[in-house]
Amino acid sequence: MKLEAIFNPRSIAVIGASRKEGSIGFMVVKGLLDSQFQGEIFPVNPNADEILGLKCYKTATEIPGEVDLAVLTVPAAVALQAVEDAGKKGVKVVAVITSGFGEVGRKDLEEELVRIANNYHMRVVGPNIVGILNNPAKANASFGPYLPYPGPIALVSQSGALLIALDGMTWINKIGISHMISIGNMADLDFADFIDALNEDPNTTCISLYIEGVKDGRKFLESARRSRKPIVALKAGVSQRGELATASHTGSLAGSSKVYTAAFEQYGIVPARSLDELFIRSIALSMMKPLMGDHVAVITNGGGAGVLATDAAERHGIPLSDPPEDLKELFRKWMPDFGSPRNPVDMTGMADRPWYQGCLLDALNHPWTDGAAILYCETSITDPQNIAEGLYESYIQAGAVKPIVVSFIGGERCLKAGEWLKSKGIPTYFDPDDALSALSALRQYGKCLERKEVQFQPHSVNKERVQEILSKVKLEGRTALMEYEAAEIFKAYGLSLAPSILARNEEEALKAAEDLGYPVVLKISSPDILHKTEAKGVKVNLKTPDEVQGAFKEIIQNARNYKADARIVGVLVQKMAAPGGTEVIFGAIRDPQFKQVVMFGLGGIFVEVLKDVTFRVAPVTVEEAKKMALEIQASSILKGVRGQGPRDLDSLADSLSRLSQLVVDFPEIKELDANPVMLYQSGLLVVDARILL
Amino acid sequence: MKLEAIFNPRSIAVIGASRKEGSIGFMVVKGLLDSQFQGEIFPVNPNADEILGLKCYKTATEIPGEVDLAVLTVPAAVALQAVEDAGKKGVKVVAVITSGFGEVGRKDLEEELVRIANNYHMRVVGPNIVGILNNPAKANASFGPYLPYPGPIALVSQSGALLIALDGMTWINKIGISHMISIGNMADLDFADFIDALNEDPNTTCISLYIEGVKDGRKFLESARRSRKPIVALKAGVSQRGELATASHTGSLAGSSKVYTAAFEQYGIVPARSLDELFIRSIALSMMKPLMGDHVAVITNGGGAGVLATDAAERHGIPLSDPPEDLKELFRKWMPDFGSPRNPVDMTGMADRPWYQGCLLDALNHPWTDGAAILYCETSITDPQNIAEGLYESYIQAGAVKPIVVSFIGGERCLKAGEWLKSKGIPTYFDPDDALSALSALRQYGKCLERKEVQFQPHSVNKERVQEILSKVKLEGRTALMEYEAAEIFKAYGLSLAPSILARNEEEALKAAEDLGYPVVLKISSPDILHKTEAKGVKVNLKTPDEVQGAFKEIIQNARNYKADARIVGVLVQKMAAPGGTEVIFGAIRDPQFKQVVMFGLGGIFVEVLKDVTFRVAPVTVEEAKKMALEIQASSILKGVRGQGPRDLDSLADSLSRLSQLVVDFPEIKELDANPVMLYQSGLLVVDARILL
Repeated sequence: MKLEAIFNPRSIAVIGASRKEGSIGFMVVKGLLDSQFQGEIFPVNPNADEILGLKCYKTATEIPGEVDLAVLTVPAAVALQAVEDAGKKGVKVVAVITSGFGEVGRKDLEEELVRIANNYHMRVVGPNIVGILNNPAKANASFGPYLPYPGPIALVSQSGALLIALDGMTWINKIGISHMISIGNMADLDFADFIDALNEDPNTTCISLYIEGVKDGRKFLESARRSRKPIVALKAGVSQRGELATASHTGSLAGSSKVYTAAFEQYGIVPARSLDELFIRSIALSMMKPLMGDHVAVITNGGGAGVLATDAAERHGIPLSDPPEDLKELFRKWMPDFGSPRNPVDMTGMADRPWYQGCLLDALNHPWTDGAAILYCETSITDPQNIAEGLYESYIQAGAVKPIVVSFIGGERCLKAGEWLKSKGIPTYFDPDDALSALSALRQYGKCLERKEVQFQPHSVNKERVQEILSKVKLEGRTALMEYEAAEIFKAYGLSLAPSILARNEEEALKAAEDLGYPVVLKISSPDILHKTEAKGVKVNLKTPDEVQGAFKEIIQNARNYKADARIVGVLVQKMAAPGGTEVIFGAIRDPQFKQVVMFGLGGIFVEVLKDVTFRVAPVTVEEAKKMALEIQASSILKGVRGQGPRDLDSLADSLSRLSQLVVDFPEIKELDANPVMLYQSGLLVVDARILL
Repeated sequence: MKLEAIFNPRSIAVIGASRKEGSIGFMVVKGLLDSQFQGEIFPVNPNADEILGLKCYKTATEIPGEVDLAVLTVPAAVALQAVEDAGKKGVKVVAVITSGFGEVGRKDLEEELVRIANNYHMRVVGPNIVGILNNPAKANASFGPYLPYPGPIALVSQSGALLIALDGMTWINKIGISHMISIGNMADLDFADFIDALNEDPNTTCISLYIEGVKDGRKFLESARRSRKPIVALKAGVSQRGELATASHTGSLAGSSKVYTAAFEQYGIVPARSLDELFIRSIALSMMKPLMGDHVAVITNGGGAGVLATDAAERHGIPLSDPPEDLKELFRKWMPDFGSPRNPVDMTGMADRPWYQGCLLDALNHPWTDGAAILYCETSITDPQNIAEGLYESYIQAGAVKPIVVSFIGGERCLKAGEWLKSKGIPTYFDPDDALSALSALRQYGKCLERKEVQFQPHSVNKERVQEILSKVKLEGRTALMEYEAAEIFKAYGLSLAPSILARNEEEALKAAEDLGYPVVLKISSPDILHKTEAKGVKVNLKTPDEVQGAFKEIIQNARNYKADARIVGVLVQKMAAPGGTEVIFGAIRDPQFKQVVMFGLGGIFVEVLKDVTFRVAPVTVEEAKKMALEIQASSILKGVRGQGPRDLDSLADSLSRLSQLVVDFPEIKELDANPVMLYQSGLLVVDARILL
């Protein structure tokens, strides 16, 4: 098992243990004692013989037995020596509570600390953490007051203060936690390491993350993809100002929230927007199997609650649909005449346990149903505990496979019955909106699983040709490719380009236009002119040899005027793209956290003014690329409007997927654009290609 | 005081009182006794002498004293007689719990009931309600089990089941309620009546509504505009399917949620999306003064909480900004060196009461600050109760004018301290997102108040001319106006139209083109041809007399081909609009609930494909019309893009406001379109006008 020393420690040393009440070194020792840790506890302090009844050691090296985990609470000034000692002792993991490292600009100190530890094959949690709270091992190795409410959710948090504050909250809201892990500056162990390790922890069924910024985006995503347990993450710093605030707070770059959102969806991380939502979703994900389809039955005793749930379902992306007639027929057994067997299934205020129990069982047993949300408005004539038991019974009887969520709207009796349901593993909430948000998380996790089955299949491409062109460009010391070079590269990766020929003089230009067929476009080709339009180096829609000749002269002259010493390779003669195409844009950028990222958008004002674009971490499968096309706001334009037929989404997705492969295969490509790309009812043509190294 | 009999009843009769435990007639009597209602209770039941120790009367007429409020629990079959009796007795208000009326298709019975009651000047609540829960009068006149937790929020709900369920919830979450009023089918008293009445209720500071659909939208909105107390509303049935569900549930049309959203904002109703949000916002609105500006100080002891609050602020529409230098200087006193005086103000985990208290006081006393959100992550070294008291003290010391909201993230101690704060009138939550949502509600209410100061000023228009045209059209039995008629009407209301002349023959057309100046447009003018383009009755960009002559002939011929017997009035010759305009659309429709509604959008795909439009209830002020222009998704296009200058928003707003006045002045106008309108950098031109009666 990975990181066994953290998840199943046999002994814990507290380096910097103290007799001073209120000091961190004191609180950690007391925390371990109070939580009734069953392994050995070794306080380390050169100036004490005994702390809270435990024998104290001068240095870690003096400890007699083996030490799995050491918690470091000494000042930063002596932390390196303490780590050295722990290493010598053979400690397996050291959790560094001590602050004063990267978060205050001393990244050097932090790196030195990790270097020392790794010398001894010792792993580091932190520094700058509140510690580790381990419920199964009953080890509160932190300066938090007590262990959280026990259960199967592991919370890994980049903010220590928040972690400690949430500790108490878990008891109020009965949110069951296996581990609370503060990872601070992540100098060594990071989110990815804990995702991997928690996958092997038998006490955890859901991994919940509070993220301000990840350090190695790819490593993080790969661990998420590997995960066989659901991951739900609250990414803080998604607002414009929030990105600034996070940066100042943790020293790690927050990254564009648009890219985070895309990466989460792509690699199977369920998002949460707030602390409440993080726990609402964690509870459901920790208890239920994923929702593997969109057929959700909403069962209620109140029309009002039903309408609210219907609104919430749509808001959370799982809109309700009508059940089939035979299922409606079954539902009718569990309601008076004025009830409704449609969705929401309104059993009316008369519904008591038998109706709830029968209705849920019928719903779950029917092949149409993928999952259910059960709502109950407290009434004087019914007992929520009784109804809770009925629901539980039906859930078990139906095999406990299809997920359910419950909303109990009411007072003390509902609260108690809801807590009972949660103790039985049924996610229960007050607000129908919360229940539907939870169900939506289960659906998103279901989609993650479906997505994981589709692996990226490399396209057959001509990698050598690209290598050749790039080598030449590098040799010449250039970072910007000329259009015909970029076009060659695109072609080598199987994209359709508007046919073009590089002409070095007027005669060649005329011949090229003849060969390509009129009308044509002429563009200046010079390694020294990046902005062709700005240099007046582009002439479009040239219909005759005369026009081509005139344009050639003009372009060369304009180029000279624009930059007298520009090396002019020639003029690119390109066949005009046929009319009737829709302008789209493919792009790739290098994200500071997730590296190669591809972008898709519609051309013109859609990108420039409305910023209606979508991102994915490269490479993207063809399926994923198609999702990109369909998720922009103006996607309906691609489906055909104003008498135009639908656009060729297959070609679009294939090309975008190929481009994503290109930037992964050649990480030296810093930026890439195909803008515009003319997308037709059948096929597409890249009209302008741009690549920067 | 309005509806005094409901809010301050001296005596209550229960018509249909019963000795049968579990029956509604029993529960209502028991509810009144248990809640210790101090006035007189008169059970009415022909078959009992005494109920729960109270003397019972055969009919209402037999009751000796005066009766303010009667609660009706008899079956629908005998309800009319019971109402008649109550009327004879001189009962002031009858609350009809009895169901079996409009909600099951018996709208006739419901109307008859109201007719009888009104004959006796008696008002009706319901029918089909759970009753009325009145905390100040200690009157639980409902079949809910007990009165809600006492406080200043009045909840008026169209769903009875939800009301009863929420009753218990108020005790769990300590949400203070003055009245819970179930209004059911709203056959007589509706939301508007209760908004008016609650404005006079000294025990209520916030009016909270659960709405499925209103019956008289204008009456509702006018009461909201009159209200001197904040109103917060959860509109159920906003999803596509939800609209269906509501319709089946209450029998009232739900209306387009887009129009509801617009109407709420325009008339000063703060929206809530879920039950949780309804109460989160109600608490703040019931306790705090509105937030009168966008300068919010976020004060925290934890970076993580600060980042979450920053994200939440942006999400809820109140993005944070930097405080001025002198205020930052003041903040620096309350934090260690590694704290941050920017916004969020991060005092670090070391912050205890003196820092919180000092920081909040400095913030509130500074003229920059409009309000504050204070976040506290529970720590071992601080006491939340102590901090709570410090915050309260500063709030009072600063004059209790600028609103504050609090988020206490932690366990039991935080919960208790938060409850203490709430008892002192400070809205306190767990999740920073909730606190910011509450603050956003206070800001929205602040904007409502600002908006209420701007009254609609009628434009100077030529109403008589419109009257004249409409009379003629009606006389001819038409419902569709010809374009030149619509254009005349628009002109009479001060809109700029592309100059045009109606030509009855070729000669007139040529003369018109000459007078207008080339290029021109020709359009068929016929009362029998509504779809001019479809009839090939439009020719644009005609540049010469020859082209005009040809087009005239062609249009007349096309019209004959399209509809042989069409009466042809002539051809409208219109000057082509100058290039460089942005196509926009003005429209007006009749909403089933809110009557005249105006619409604005950009032309072309923006309206047709992207449905990027915005609505307002007419009339709209010029200020409001400008807000419409700026709130469409593509509004940046109006601000000037791609080298184009910004569009003339003043002309746009003036024209839209005038159109809104037109549809209010002439309610016989069913639909109106100005499409396209060419909007220039200076001025605009309506190119095509359409009016339907």
